[in-house]
Amino acid sequence: MRSSSQSGTLMAAEMAEQPERLAAVIGRADTIAAEVRATRPPTLAGTVMIARGSSDHAAVYGRYLIEPASSRPVSLASPSLLTLYKAQVSYRDWLAVAISQSGATPEITSTLRLVHAAQGRAIAITNDASSELAAEADAVIALEVGAERSVPATKTVTAEMAALVILARALGEAPFDAGELPKVPDWVERILADEVPACALAARLTEASRLVVVARGLMYGAALETALKLTETCGILAEGYSAADLRHGPIAAVAADVPVLALTVPGPAEADMLDLIGALRARGVSVHTVGTDTDADLPLPAEVPEALAPLCAVVRGQQLAHELALALDLDPDRPVGLTKVTVT
Amino acid sequence: MRSSSQSGTLMAAEMAEQPERLAAVIGRADTIAAEVRATRPPTLAGTVMIARGSSDHAAVYGRYLIEPASSRPVSLASPSLLTLYKAQVSYRDWLAVAISQSGATPEITSTLRLVHAAQGRAIAITNDASSELAAEADAVIALEVGAERSVPATKTVTAEMAALVILARALGEAPFDAGELPKVPDWVERILADEVPACALAARLTEASRLVVVARGLMYGAALETALKLTETCGILAEGYSAADLRHGPIAAVAADVPVLALTVPGPAEADMLDLIGALRARGVSVHTVGTDTDADLPLPAEVPEALAPLCAVVRGQQLAHELALALDLDPDRPVGLTKVTVT
Repeated sequence: MRSSSQSGTLMAAEMAEQPERLAAVIGRADTIAAEVRATRPPTLAGTVMIARGSSDHAAVYGRYLIEPASSRPVSLASPSLLTLYKAQVSYRDWLAVAISQSGATPEITSTLRLVHAAQGRAIAITNDASSELAAEADAVIALEVGAERSVPATKTVTAEMAALVILARALGEAPFDAGELPKVPDWVERILADEVPACALAARLTEASRLVVVARGLMYGAALETALKLTETCGILAEGYSAADLRHGPIAAVAADVPVLALTVPGPAEADMLDLIGALRARGVSVHTVGTDTDADLPLPAEVPEALAPLCAVVRGQQLAHELALALDLDPDRPVGLTKVTVT
Repeated sequence: MRSSSQSGTLMAAEMAEQPERLAAVIGRADTIAAEVRATRPPTLAGTVMIARGSSDHAAVYGRYLIEPASSRPVSLASPSLLTLYKAQVSYRDWLAVAISQSGATPEITSTLRLVHAAQGRAIAITNDASSELAAEADAVIALEVGAERSVPATKTVTAEMAALVILARALGEAPFDAGELPKVPDWVERILADEVPACALAARLTEASRLVVVARGLMYGAALETALKLTETCGILAEGYSAADLRHGPIAAVAADVPVLALTVPGPAEADMLDLIGALRARGVSVHTVGTDTDADLPLPAEVPEALAPLCAVVRGQQLAHELALALDLDPDRPVGLTKVTVT
């Protein structure tokens, strides 16, 4: 069986950098937090997240941390409202967080510029601190993970997620112990060293043309990102859903020939997820799992708390996408018809 | 060819009620607007929309009207943050708009209750003015469209969309002339009377197991709703995307065997949509269109302005879903494994 570490792809090499890159971001947590606190409006009306693609999935995860930490609502921006429709919206007392690995997506830069001009306080999270996006912001959280050359984003996504954890903690309380964040690089290292589960699951999914990835709450962003990674690298139409949204209609199309990948760890969302998994299996659907359970198809270290589990689950998703692409004889570094910077 | 009006399904009967039901809601516009103005916080920090399923698609549409009209950001709620994670979030100076046809979805009711208790001003849009949801609100916009018995929501969705148009206009300026809203019932009537295009397109889609529905900006909510209607009634895994999100990855999986339905009308989003349609066709993808162009596969009345076109496009989507279900010998009224009220 070929494995990620032996494959020689850029994607595998960039995935392998993650423990070190994450440790570096987390090592700068105090500096980043101080900058966030200096930038936030004194009276916060809300936080708006501006992102697309994988960065948007990091934003979805960040929202579940920032909303409780800041005690104020979070909005995921619809960039076209500002860029195409020229809506005149006041962002007085709002904090804007724009996320883009390249800092070069014109739509994200334009949106942050408009929010900033409308009195929003602006933070850019990007891998290029000299990018146009960074120039539009009051403060920049530089990911500093080195150039990402494979089209599917990996190390930039987990670095963005870590940056959002730090940002949320700077705004208030986060639902995990302070000592746990520095353990993330080790958890990711252990996952990367354990390729057998992803290889085995990939071998079972080579016939799939559709796939559903489902999670709830804090894990939802990781489900969206895993679905996108599979779609980009394998040409599978994989869809990420929250468990609640899946029940509100799309479940009608999840038949026995549509495998489901379910992300679930102990926490407030677990009961709902286990109930959904049972209901899907009762319909004859193949449900594969990502979680801290010892019998999960893609296991996570048992001690990972729910709030940090998405960072680990995303790496399992990368591994699965990479292995499945290889099993399908596809080049994960160059998905058909995608480029590294998307212009919309 | 069987047609909706001859099919005898509840769904067709409820679709046929829409012109009359819409006229009734629009006829109450002044009363509804007065109630909205009496309920909104004097200083608005933002608006949060609380909904799932079809009502959430109405909310996505409403967001594109409410954000510019109110000049303040709109957030689509993540109910689990409040209901499962018990996040302590202050909604001081926020307006909450909860949308549920039944008013009986426990998650939506709980979320509105928590937002209300956290100082948000609460409006419920529902077909049951004596529902639990209505009891949690400061003001109720009653849809009054009669009981909806078919599982796929139709007349309640267009009524919700009309209610949101009225709500947005009550908060500020909307991007269409005041005289145009009363024309919606007539436009919908003309679409319902013209079943041939939907029958013809349905006949071409009977082999599809996957489908992508794409739009941008104001039409995005209509794309999500059309995808859900097709998924519910036909067991097709249909996915709604914004054009921008599709380009950020999922386009890699849109191959020649995945038909695309593109919703596009003249306006600020049109150039981007036409560019995407061209790019998809260049890859050999079959793109079918919904729009005001005379050569659209599912045409809309030529004079419909972009801001109201989603109301008409949703009806074209209902027609297509209904005809395709009949062509597949499925009962659109009773999708496999769905119930009218979803408990999550």
